[in-house]
Parts: sequence; structure tokens; C-alpha cells
Amino acid sequence: MKNRIEKDSIGEVAINQNKYFGINTQRALNNFQVRVNSTDLELIKQIAQIKRAAAMANEKLARISPEKSKVIQQAAQEIISGQFDNQFTIPEIQGGAGTSTNMNVNEVIANRGLEILHHQHGEYQYLSPQDDVNAGQSTNDVYPSAGKLTIYLKTQVLEEELLKLIKALQQKGLEFKDVSKIGRTQLQEAVPTTLGNTFNAFADGLKRCLYRLKMNLPAMLELNLGGTAIGTGVNTSKGYQDLLYSQLQKIYQVDAHPAFDLIDGTQNLDSFVQISGSLKALAVTMSKMSHDLRLLSSGPRSGFNEIHLPARQAGSSIMPGKVNPVIPEVVSQIAFQVIGNDTTVTLAAESGELELNAFEPVIFHNLFESIELLKNACQMLTTECIPGIKANKAKCQHDLDKSVETVTKLTPIIGYETASEVVTESLKTGVDVYKLLRKKNLFSNDKETTKKLNEVLN
Amino acid sequence: MKNRIEKDSIGEVAINQNKYFGINTQRALNNFQVRVNSTDLELIKQIAQIKRAAAMANEKLARISPEKSKVIQQAAQEIISGQFDNQFTIPEIQGGAGTSTNMNVNEVIANRGLEILHHQHGEYQYLSPQDDVNAGQSTNDVYPSAGKLTIYLKTQVLEEELLKLIKALQQKGLEFKDVSKIGRTQLQEAVPTTLGNTFNAFADGLKRCLYRLKMNLPAMLELNLGGTAIGTGVNTSKGYQDLLYSQLQKIYQVDAHPAFDLIDGTQNLDSFVQISGSLKALAVTMSKMSHDLRLLSSGPRSGFNEIHLPARQAGSSIMPGKVNPVIPEVVSQIAFQVIGNDTTVTLAAESGELELNAFEPVIFHNLFESIELLKNACQMLTTECIPGIKANKAKCQHDLDKSVETVTKLTPIIGYETASEVVTESLKTGVDVYKLLRKKNLFSNDKETTKKLNEVLN
Amino acid sequence: MKNRIEKDSIGEVAINQNKYFGINTQRALNNFQVRVNSTDLELIKQIAQIKRAAAMANEKLARISPEKSKVIQQAAQEIISGQFDNQFTIPEIQGGAGTSTNMNVNEVIANRGLEILHHQHGEYQYLSPQDDVNAGQSTNDVYPSAGKLTIYLKTQVLEEELLKLIKALQQKGLEFKDVSKIGRTQLQEAVPTTLGNTFNAFADGLKRCLYRLKMNLPAMLELNLGGTAIGTGVNTSKGYQDLLYSQLQKIYQVDAHPAFDLIDGTQNLDSFVQISGSLKALAVTMSKMSHDLRLLSSGPRSGFNEIHLPARQAGSSIMPGKVNPVIPEVVSQIAFQVIGNDTTVTLAAESGELELNAFEPVIFHNLFESIELLKNACQMLTTECIPGIKANKAKCQHDLDKSVETVTKLTPIIGYETASEVVTESLKTGVDVYKLLRKKNLFSNDKETTKKLNEVLN
Amino acid sequence: MKNRIEKDSIGEVAINQNKYFGINTQRALNNFQVRVNSTDLELIKQIAQIKRAAAMANEKLARISPEKSKVIQQAAQEIISGQFDNQFTIPEIQGGAGTSTNMNVNEVIANRGLEILHHQHGEYQYLSPQDDVNAGQSTNDVYPSAGKLTIYLKTQVLEEELLKLIKALQQKGLEFKDVSKIGRTQLQEAVPTTLGNTFNAFADGLKRCLYRLKMNLPAMLELNLGGTAIGTGVNTSKGYQDLLYSQLQKIYQVDAHPAFDLIDGTQNLDSFVQISGSLKALAVTMSKMSHDLRLLSSGPRSGFNEIHLPARQAGSSIMPGKVNPVIPEVVSQIAFQVIGNDTTVTLAAESGELELNAFEPVIFHNLFESIELLKNACQMLTTECIPGIKANKAKCQHDLDKSVETVTKLTPIIGYETASEVVTESLKTGVDVYKLLRKKNLFSNDKETTKKLNEVLN
Repeated sequence: MKNRIEKDSIGEVAINQNKYFGINTQRALNNFQVRVNSTDLELIKQIAQIKRAAAMANEKLARISPEKSKVIQQAAQEIISGQFDNQFTIPEIQGGAGTSTNMNVNEVIANRGLEILHHQHGEYQYLSPQDDVNAGQSTNDVYPSAGKLTIYLKTQVLEEELLKLIKALQQKGLEFKDVSKIGRTQLQEAVPTTLGNTFNAFADGLKRCLYRLKMNLPAMLELNLGGTAIGTGVNTSKGYQDLLYSQLQKIYQVDAHPAFDLIDGTQNLDSFVQISGSLKALAVTMSKMSHDLRLLSSGPRSGFNEIHLPARQAGSSIMPGKVNPVIPEVVSQIAFQVIGNDTTVTLAAESGELELNAFEPVIFHNLFESIELLKNACQMLTTECIPGIKANKAKCQHDLDKSVETVTKLTPIIGYETASEVVTESLKTGVDVYKLLRKKNLFSNDKETTKKLNEVLN
Repeated sequence: MKNRIEKDSIGEVAINQNKYFGINTQRALNNFQVRVNSTDLELIKQIAQIKRAAAMANEKLARISPEKSKVIQQAAQEIISGQFDNQFTIPEIQGGAGTSTNMNVNEVIANRGLEILHHQHGEYQYLSPQDDVNAGQSTNDVYPSAGKLTIYLKTQVLEEELLKLIKALQQKGLEFKDVSKIGRTQLQEAVPTTLGNTFNAFADGLKRCLYRLKMNLPAMLELNLGGTAIGTGVNTSKGYQDLLYSQLQKIYQVDAHPAFDLIDGTQNLDSFVQISGSLKALAVTMSKMSHDLRLLSSGPRSGFNEIHLPARQAGSSIMPGKVNPVIPEVVSQIAFQVIGNDTTVTLAAESGELELNAFEPVIFHNLFESIELLKNACQMLTTECIPGIKANKAKCQHDLDKSVETVTKLTPIIGYETASEVVTESLKTGVDVYKLLRKKNLFSNDKETTKKLNEVLN
Repeated sequence: MKNRIEKDSIGEVAINQNKYFGINTQRALNNFQVRVNSTDLELIKQIAQIKRAAAMANEKLARISPEKSKVIQQAAQEIISGQFDNQFTIPEIQGGAGTSTNMNVNEVIANRGLEILHHQHGEYQYLSPQDDVNAGQSTNDVYPSAGKLTIYLKTQVLEEELLKLIKALQQKGLEFKDVSKIGRTQLQEAVPTTLGNTFNAFADGLKRCLYRLKMNLPAMLELNLGGTAIGTGVNTSKGYQDLLYSQLQKIYQVDAHPAFDLIDGTQNLDSFVQISGSLKALAVTMSKMSHDLRLLSSGPRSGFNEIHLPARQAGSSIMPGKVNPVIPEVVSQIAFQVIGNDTTVTLAAESGELELNAFEPVIFHNLFESIELLKNACQMLTTECIPGIKANKAKCQHDLDKSVETVTKLTPIIGYETASEVVTESLKTGVDVYKLLRKKNLFSNDKETTKKLNEVLN
Repeated sequence: MKNRIEKDSIGEVAINQNKYFGINTQRALNNFQVRVNSTDLELIKQIAQIKRAAAMANEKLARISPEKSKVIQQAAQEIISGQFDNQFTIPEIQGGAGTSTNMNVNEVIANRGLEILHHQHGEYQYLSPQDDVNAGQSTNDVYPSAGKLTIYLKTQVLEEELLKLIKALQQKGLEFKDVSKIGRTQLQEAVPTTLGNTFNAFADGLKRCLYRLKMNLPAMLELNLGGTAIGTGVNTSKGYQDLLYSQLQKIYQVDAHPAFDLIDGTQNLDSFVQISGSLKALAVTMSKMSHDLRLLSSGPRSGFNEIHLPARQAGSSIMPGKVNPVIPEVVSQIAFQVIGNDTTVTLAAESGELELNAFEPVIFHNLFESIELLKNACQMLTTECIPGIKANKAKCQHDLDKSVETVTKLTPIIGYETASEVVTESLKTGVDVYKLLRKKNLFSNDKETTKKLNEVLN
């Protein structure tokens, strides 16, 4: 196994000749012993897309030769298609504001390009990771822009899964529309509702979350590409920015566009806080629904016991036959993780200094994970839980019949005070509220009242 | 001091006859010994507005008599004008999902109405807090709707103050547009920029936060009023909802409208998580700017020392003549509070159960505080800090002249590797980078390169 | 209303001659328009205690005259006794790392001292806020030390209230020790337990929180007093530190002592993060218990309905006779606030720079509030909720009788697989598990097994 | 590839005959498509240790045969030595409160045991995952206890690495003890200090964090083992608990012991919140230090520039020769992650219900990650950053010489007001403070003062 020697302003490093990455990647692997996980390959692929688009733009502007442009594009395409996944193992949480990851892509493209051009790995005089692959770019603009595009793409997949979940819930809303049940506020019985209402409310809450994501997601298409170092655009050629964005729009088929102020766009990360907030609002809604599913299915004999969740696995190593609501449980835990991740994103965004926020890597790590987790939560609910839910109609009806708060609808006629007395007496004595109302002659004294009451009651 | 006795389903309570509030308020005052602060009077006033609108609607629908409607409206108007502020002292953080606060308003309106009608406080047979003042309403819909309207109104004031801050920053951006300085990423010198860019980036970051607030704020006009208990609309009269919203639109001159699904609108509080996220994104941006102001003004003799903040107060009880950046310091602390408040809002929203989230009071407490604090932070920056900032042009120029990273602009000509060597050597030896470039004959060997270099350098 | 003119290094300020505070306080009132709340008077009193102790020490060391020492001590004592509460209105969240609050105390002591000495307010040549009252001190050491002492004292009150709550719970543990009920994991029925166990577990969880608070609280007695500016001890007299701490120990009757490294003690605020963590662990435990109280009392007719909470207030403005678990609801909201406050404390502690953390004010604001809120939560539970809880024995027994998981205790004899089959069949058919066991002849085939089964069952 | 069919109360599942895991594991793999990461193998190993200890105890109590005990112990030992790592791939975040992971270990032990006993995988009539491997246990006690032991062991490794970091910092404290420099509060120059003080304060802050971890860690040895289902101890044999803990103490050589109240110990997770708080306090201290390292090394030409961090990698893809403080940057990001993880832990702990907290899996996931990340952060600082730090003595001295706050030490002699005037004048005019003092004749008017001044100055 032969090594080649690469050098930079700090010194020399030996690298296995077979490796496509170079000295910057190798140093990062040595420096960042974070061992939690390596950089998301989706992010790598969006960086490669940017390299491809930049090469096209630079070629048109004669900044790089057509030959170099061609091999850069080819190598980038190969990365996008997954051929070099094993060359990207730098931890996602890294120092250096993403420079290592950007250089990782630059180096793999350069060395793969050299290979295509029949040169040896490391012969950068023929194709330079910095001067050619990175031409007109800086980590300052490539890394955050690729991160935004990654978030955009991942969120679109999440949105699709969320929509499937909403539809599954609506299906249940329809299926249960005639299942009457008692409503509950503060865990105490309130006025009647239907189980259909319950599932429709779940669906409608999630629809609003979906709408909100869609409303806030375009912020991820406002890029600082073209800004290079700190947003000044230093070392870009005239016309480069227009060419670059027109390529990106072709590649992604979306309106990726430059930020109004590239200096601001490079240093302020509030947009990530916002998108994290939208993800958190979704997590909160999914967790609240999960709690409700667990509450409503509490049993199997006592408890609320109004619905049955599909049994997914044996629930206990010691208690035979026990079945637990495992899917809602994992969904709430995912929500807790997304909420914690939002705290991390916030701290990192708040800690930015001057012309750059050096803490983007941990922001991306957390946003990528949150989106992925929420997508998985949607899938688990849609495939393993919601469609199999069954109503326990008998229990729903039983609790409704027993409830005293059905009297609420009579208060416009008999008054809040009288109604309160009747309810309190019923709870104390166990006598049915309607029997008590009759005993109080509320149904007979006054024809008008009786008529109204009978109307309401039928 | 005479007492009157009021009773409810639980029992009797003695209340000072002078008090306008009744048994529900008194019980709440006894129960919730939270002692942190009392309910926001803005919230009380929006509840009173809703009572007014509901009275008009109920009168038209013959649910209550014109006489009752008139006194309810008058009493509500008096609350709105501040005449009964001292009758509203229930702690903002309370159990019961806001029932105590809604009943507090119902009771004060009823007793003030009774007074107008020449009855005694407590003679609810002539004007009932529940049957008349609360007709067609429930705490379930009044309280969250009033909370949303309060957030809407407070945020509009915040937006005005934020706009003033943005303008003050833009003014400085203009004033400093010709002050060249070195940019910095990761606290290390990067390529040149201007102090004007710095302040424009602050302004543009905040503009985006303002835009985002404006985009997300309309969610606070989507109300569940008309839903009464758990969103079912039980006990509202036919046509009530239309009349009610048309009154509200007249009162507020905004598009307040019912949620698509009132059941969902009563139980899911994701919209508060979202608005809290937008406030947090603003807090993060303001705190990042405050850190930068402190960094750039670090001194007074060493440090970055590129700007002077206006001196606001003596900085030390022991170190004479010391002056500290106290306004940015208080702004960052406000941001920390807003970020913590967002955590509280999130937990409360996630903890909702079934047909209602009982934890709205703590959500409102935190959102009201966050908005108020951010508004105050904007004002403090606008009045006490930004306009008085002065540039230390000599220091800006000095650091720029010393910097080695000005060589970045030459890399497209001399290549990254050569440039790196020159920079490294300059940092080691202290010899100026341009002198080193000349020593390397980069300016003489090749006419084309020399020409390009001279172009860039001039 | 006459004004006096005071001046400092920044310029002149007019102050109402009646005011005891001076220019530093006035500037702070102008600068910090935070309007959330003013500085905690407990903190003011601990600063005054430190001033008193320092005056005694400085007098012994001849740093200040006995006459000055005497009036400083008297004025400090008057502040401690509450005579000057209205002179301390600077917002608790403030810039300047507490300098304004320290100077507020220095100024009130100086001006009150001048009054005693028959001088006019503001004639600081006779008694200087800095040179005399603040002698041997710096805000750097006075403010954080006073904050720690305040936290210490407030937490002791919290501990007393927590102990009362624990005792109230233990009382219920005893009262309910024979009330058998079904246990539940994941809201599904598990093996039998007792209601006594439930309340004892609440008590024991809180006991551990109390123990943990007691274990971590002594960190609040490790002060940086004597460190003056940045912990160097500059401008303290030889022997001052010993005298000061010996006075403090006399005053507080606790082992207040200097940090091992005063430089570290001035800049690192990890101890506040730790104590906030302990408070948060308590909040979490109280909120979990509150959720359980709400779950167990869910009803009034359906739901778990195993206990009745004492009715505290009418639960609804529309639903007559409804009663809600308002005390547990307010406790959970307090927990959410404490958890959010912990986030704020963490951010502020993390943001410290170099020799001082300028963000102590917001840390104190949040810790003071958290302690106060938790104390109030304990009180509300102890006085308004726990003692009045009643068991619904019939419902407990009913659910226990119905449950299938009572079979768990037979698994060591009949095996997990057989038991699972029986439970599953019972849930499907509604036939009692014991009947099914008998049907399977498990009680008759094998004498040994039958004997064991009968032992377990009786 | 042959399949075997396993069945449980829900139905049948086909499993590859080669697999050591069974139906419960397979169902979990199908159910929990979380795809973030699989269960920590350290946790698996501690569960295996518990299985081993339980087998020994059960054998002594004749609950299982010596033969079964032997193979259970052997299989457990093989898991501990890593031979079956690939059989444990259930995601760490899972529903079911850890039942899947406990059953995964039960099943692998059973099937490996069957293999040793020359039976086929799945022939559980000869060795049952539930009746034999899990005898006297429940997921309710095994899973949280194994989690606590895992945290204990991981934290011990963290403590070792933290100690190395402290020593590296102390080394620098010694090396730099004579490097005088200006101190800074609020980023403004304060009184003089030394670079040695700076590094000693870093070390002392971390020492306190280490002490605190050590003080709070024993809570992780308070287990609920022996409690089985919900802490009741159902299905344990008499004497089992004593035997079990005595085995565990032998295995771990630490004082693992049962909780005072096993019911409480099973449902309340406050101890995890506390340990997370201690980890967070460490994270905060490390991040604050990292910020300081970045601030103090800001440069390379302007900025604070008092120290040089060792260069670890090229800092930019566009700016040649730039070197960034990448190690402190990654450490701060790790701190942000730990802080976010604490939020997740808190939410999960707060959400517990009744006799069990079903959200332990996400708590363990986050605590394991936090400990691992902090350990790695210590290592990176110790190996890649601290030892190579160099002082920029010239710059330290230069800034110290320029500073005006050196005058602080004269205030006890000349008074705060005079000193303030001199400092203000010096800052305005640029004239040296000592020259100004002389001009004011403060050194000549009064012999006593002059003598004192000269003493202080020399």
C-alpha cells in the first residue's frame, strides 16, 4: 500500500495513494475524533452539484479550461451517483465551519479528475482542488448553500410522508364519524363529540403544520452562493453569479436565488432557527396526538379504552399477553429529540461572530436528524399504527351515557346555576341528571321551557 | 367593610361588597398563590372586546335583551379604557385553562352592569356572568382567542420598534460605507470589507426577521371563537358566529376569522410554538449583533477596537473610568430569556391532552413577556446605543494594512499554493506579503501575470 | 422638588434631592428600560449584609474610620430591615454585570450615612459610595456572592416547604396503604399495587430531590468575595479576607468560604447551571406527580377515576358542575417555567468571556424565580390539594378485579407462553382468566402445580 | 437460507434460522424504523452482566437448573466479549420502554444456550428467553438498571479524560505563570493578571465540574433491580435480591445497591435529569474556555492575539494561509449538542406516567451520546490543542503597557473620582495615565501619598 506525500502551509502528510481525498481531508479525520457520525451523504451530493454548476459557469467565463470543466463535472456526477461514498467519512460535527467537508469534495473531484486525465492522485498541478474545483467559490458560500439545499430536499420527502399520514388520519375521521363519545377537557368529561372529530382534529392540526413548513421552506432556497469569502464575492468572475444560479435552477428545478445581502446571508443563521421552529411545531403536534392515542387506548380492561391500537409486539418480558402502544411511544421520543435538537440549533445560531458563523456543522447535523426522524415517525404511524386503529364503540357509548356534562346543552334554557346544582347532585347521589331535572319539574312547570328542552333533547 | 355571600357548586364564599369580581375570581386568588405576576391587562382588554362583540351578536339574535346588551357593552368598554384594572389580579400562571380569568371578566362586567342597572353587586338574577355575559361563549374559545389577539397587537408594536432599529442601523451602514476594514471569520482575519457592510448586514438580518414575523403573524388571527366547549359550538345560536366575527373585524380592523376546524383549533397549540420560534429567530439575530458590537468595541486601548459605543454609565465600582457595553449586554440577556421562554412554550404546547390544552396560561405568560422584552430591547438599542456609535477609522485602516489575507484577491492569478506560502512566510517573518511577492519575482517574470496583478492591486 | 447635580466620568445628571440613590442608579434607570421586574429585594439585602461585613473588616484594618464604619453598618442594617425598599427599582435584567445594583446599594448607604452624619445627600467627600462603602470590594465579587447567598437562603425556604409536601404525601401513603389497585405501565394495566405505594413513591421521589438539593447547595457558599476585580484581590488590605469571612459566618451562621481559585470563581458560572439542574430535577418530579394526580382523578364518571382531588373552584364558564384539577395544572406549568428558566441560565453561563461573565443578572433573575415558583408549587399542593385527596376504593377494586395481568404471578408456575395464551383468550372472549386456567385443567393435572397455584392465589 | 417460525400472543413471524435473536427482536426491527442508530453495545453488555448475575442467583435459589444457569452465563459472557455484536441492531430510540432490547438479549442468550445444549434455535421448551433467562426479572428493572450502569462506566472514562485535560491546562498555567497581561471584563480592559492565571482558572473550573460529577455519579448505582414489574418484586424468589446484588458488586467492584423504594425507583427518572445537568455544567465550562481560547488567539495580526493555538489544518478553501481555531470550535459545538440533549432528557423524564416512564430509551440515547461527546472533546483538547499553545508575550506586554486600568491599584490612595478623571483624560488625549498623575502633582504635593504611590508602583 503506497503512500503519497501531500503538503500545505502547515506541513506534509502521508496519504494512501489509493485514496481520492487529500491532505485537508486527512487532517480533518485526524483532528475531529468526534465518532458520532460521519457527514450526511446528501450534503456531500449537494456540494458536488454546486461544483458541477460552478464548473459549467467557470468554463463559460474561461476561468477554467473546457477539459478541466468536463472532468470536474464527470467526477461530481459520479459522487452524486454514490460511487465515492466511502471517501466521505469526516464527522458531521467538525471545527472549521465546513472547510474540511468542502475540501473533501474538492479533493475527491480533483483526484478522480486526475485519474480520468491519466495523472496520478495528488498531481494537483494538472487539476487543483482549490484553484480549479473550488474556483469562484469559498467554503463560506458553498457549505451553507449546500446545507440549505439538503434541508430543502429532505423536507420535501418529509412533506410527502406527512401528507400520507394526514390522509390516513382523515380516513379514520370518516370511518369514525358516527361514533359518538364524550369529549374531555383537563381529563374531565366535557360535552359530547365524535371519534371522527378526534381524528379529523389530528389531521387538521398536521395540515396546518404542513402548510407552515411549505410557507417557511422557500427560505432554504435563498443562498449566499456567489458571495465567496464573507459574502464579498471576491474572486468571482463578472457574470459568474447569473450563470451559476441559472445552472442550479436547471439542476434542481426550483427557484434557488441569491440572498439580497450576501454579507448578511453569510453571517446570520436565523433562517435555520425558523425552520427548526417549524419542525418543532410539527413534532409537538405529533407528540400531542401520540399522547392522545395512548390515553384513548389505555386499557385493556379499565382506562379510557375508547380505541384499540393494532398490536405490534409483545409488551413485556414478565407480564404475559400485555400489549403496549409502542408506535406512539417512539413518536413522542422522536418529538423530544427534535425539541432538544432545536435547542442545539438555537445555541449555535446565537453564537455566530462577525462575518461568519463557525457553528454551521452542528446546525446541519441537528436539522438533518430532525427532518429524518420526523419523516420516519410519519412513516411508522402511517404503516404500523393509524390504519389499524379500531373504535371501541360500546365503551364510547357507555361513557357518554353515564356523563353528566350532556346537560350543558340545556343551560341556555334552565340557566347555569340550576344546571350546576343538578350536576352536582347527580355526581353525589348517582341519580341520572335527566331524572333529577324531571324531579325538579323543569320539564313540566312551564310549557315554553318544556318545549325548548324537548327540542334540544331530541 | 360589608361582605356579600356568593355560592357555586362547591359552596359559599364571602366577598367584599365593593369588589366587582365574584366567587370565581375570589377562589382563583385563593388557589393560585403563584406570586410572580398578575394577568396581563392587555389580555383582559381583549377578553372585554370579545364580550362586547358577543353581546352585540347575542342581542341581534335575541339571546339577551337589548338592555342587558347595552350594559354589558358599556362595562366592557370601561374595562378596555382601564377603569377596572385593579379588579384583575389573578396570577397569569394559573390552573383551569384560563377559566378564572374569563370568569373574572364575566364577573366584573356583570357587577358593573348591575351597578348601572341600580342593582347590588351579586344580584346575578338580573345579569348573570355565565348566562348573559358569557352567552354563546366558553373559556375554551374566549381565552385562547383573546390570547391570540393580544399577541397580534403586542407584536405589531414590536414590529414598529424593530423597524426603527433597522432604520438606525441602515443610517450607520450609510455613514460607515467608506470605512474600510478587515473582515473576520472564526475570529481570524479574512478578506477586506467595510464597516458599512457590517451595519447593513445587521439591518438586513433584522429585516428578514421582521418579514418572517409578518408572514407568520396572521396565524394569530385564526381564532376558535364560536367553538365554545371543545370546539363543538354547543350553545351558540344560529348565525352567531358570522355576527361575532363581523363585529370583531370592525373592532380590530383586521381579518380575524374562525379556524377551519374549531375542534382542532381548540386543542392544538402548534401556532404558538411557531410564533415563539419566529420571536426566537429575532432574539438570536439581535444577540449575535450585540456580541459583534461588544467585540468590535472591545478596548479601550487593545482589543478589536474598531468602533466606539456611546458611554452610558460608569462601568465599575472599583476600576475608575471603565466603560462597558451595557446596552448590548442587556440585549443578549433578553435574548437568552426569550430562548428560555420558547422552551417553556414548547413544553406546554406538547403537553396538551384530548380536547383542550390546559396549559395555555403559561404559554401566554411567556409569549407576552418575550414580545415585550424584544420590543424593549429594540427601543434600548435605538435610543441608547446605535445612533451614537462612532467608527475608529484609524484602527480599522491599521488592521487592514497589517493583514495578510488581502492577498486572497491575487490567488486567481498566482494560485492558492503560492499564495499560501507567501502568507505563511509573512506571518513567520513579519515581512509584508507584497514585498515577499515581489521578492519571488511574481511581479516581473511574466508580463501577463504582472499586468493582472497590477490591475487587481489598483 | 429640588434636584442635586451628580457627576461621573461621563458627565452630569440631575437627581431629586430626596432620593437616596445617586448618579449610577439614575443612569441605570434611564438605560435599562426592561420593564419586566425590579431587582429582588432579597438580593439587595444580601449586598447590604456584605457591605456591613466589609465595613467591620475595613474598620479593623484602619481602611475606613470607625465613624464611617458605624454609619455604613447602620445604613446597611436599615436596608436589611426594609426601610429603603423603594430606592431599589433597577430592573433585575440589566447590563453591566450587576454594577448598577452594587452601586445602587453603595449610593443608598452613602446618602443615608451622610444624612446620619448631618450632611447633604451627594456630599460624597464625607462618605464615598466607592472609596468608603465599596472599599475592598468590586461588583465582580460582591454581586455574584450576594446572588449565591440569596439563592442559598431562598432554597432553604423551598426545602422547608418541600419537606411539608413530602410529609403530606407520606400521610396519604399511610392512609391508602390498604387500597389495592391495578398498576399501569405505558397506560396499560400491569401487576397489582396499592394506592399507598403510589403516594409513597411520590414522596420518595421528592425526598431524593430534596437530598440532592441539600447535597449541591453548599456550592452556593463558595464565594469569590475578596477577589475584587477579576479575582485578583487588588485593593484589599492584608488580612481583609479572613476578617470578612469571619463576619459573614457570624451573620449567616453558615460556612461561607472563599473559592479555592478566586480568578476561576469570578469567571466560571457552572455552579449556577448545576443548581438549576437540581431545581429542574425537582420540577420534573413534581410535574410527573401532577400528571399522575390528574390521570388518576380523571372522571368524574369515566376515566381512571381512582382518586378524588378536593374541588377548588368551578371548572367552566359554560359546563355546569364541572370541576378540574387546577392545582396539579398550575404545578405543571410552574415546572415548565422552571425548565425554560434552566435553558436561559445555561445560555447565560455558556456565554461568559474571559475574566467575567457579564450575564449574571439574567441568571439570578431566573434562579430566583425558579426557586420562588417551586416553593409556591409545594405550598399550593400541601395546602390546597394533597391532604384533601380521597380514594375511590370501589373503582380501584373494580378495575383490579377485571384485570388480566393478575395472572403474572402465576407465570413462574405455568410458564410465560401458557399465561400469554390465557390472557389473550380472556381479552378476546371476555371470559375470566382464572376460569380459563381451570378450563385448561392447569389446576388439576398436576398436584404439585395445583398446590403452588393455590398457594399463590391465596 | 432456512427460516424458523416463532410465535407469540400476537401471531407468527418467520426468522432466519441462523439468527440468534427471536420473534420479539424481529418485531422490533420491523416496528422501529428510526434509522438513526442502533442500541449502544455497552448497554447490551450491562444487560448481559445482569443476566449472568441473575442466573447465578436463580441457580442458588433452585429457580433454574445448574445446567441452564451454566449456559446462560456462558452465552452472556460471550455477548460481553463482543461475539454477538451483530445480533443487536434495534434502534436505540424505540417504543416499549426497552422491552425489545431486554428481549433481544434474552433471545440471543436463549438461542446461543440452546446451541451449546445441542438444540435448535427456537426450541425454547429447553431454554426459555422469558421463563429462564429473564427469571426473576422484568424489563422494568433490567433496562433502567443496565442503563444506569452504562452511564456509570462511560462517565468513569470521561472522568479520566477530563483529568488529563485538567493536567494539560495546569501545565500551561505553570508555563505561563510569569506572562503578565491585562485582564478583561465585558471585553473591556480591567486590571492586570497573568496568562498563568487564565489557564489555572480553566483548570480549576473543570476540576469543580469533575468533583461535581463524582459527587452526583453514585446515584447511578442506586438500581431498581429486584423490583421486576413496576417495582413490586413480583416473581422474585425469597433471597434473590441479596444474591443478585452481591453478584453485581463482585462483577463491577462498586457499591451497586437497591433503591430505598423500588416503586419510586421504577417510575421517577429525576436522577437522569440531575446527571445530565452535571454533564451540561461541564459542557458549559468547556465551551466558555473554548470561546476564550478563540478570543485570545484572535489574529493573526490584529485582534487579541495573546496566544497562538497549534495549527491543525488549512483554514480556508479560498483564503491562502488562513488557520482557524478548529479544535475549540468543535468543542463548543459538542457543548451545544450536550445542552440540547439535556432538553431532550428533561422532556422525556417529565413525561413519565404512573408506574413507569416509557421514554427511557431516548434518555439513554442522549446521555450516552453526551458522555461520549464530552469524552471526545476532552481528548481532542488534550491531544490536539492545549499542549501546543504558545504565549505571544510581546503582545501581552504591549497591551498591558498601554492600558489605563493599571491605575486601579492607586485608587485607595488617590480616590475613585480623581482616578476616573485621569483615566478619562488619558483615553481622550492619549497621554499616559502616570504622566497625567504627575502633571496633577499627585506625586509631589503630599509626602505620605507619594510614598504610598511609589510603594504600589514598585
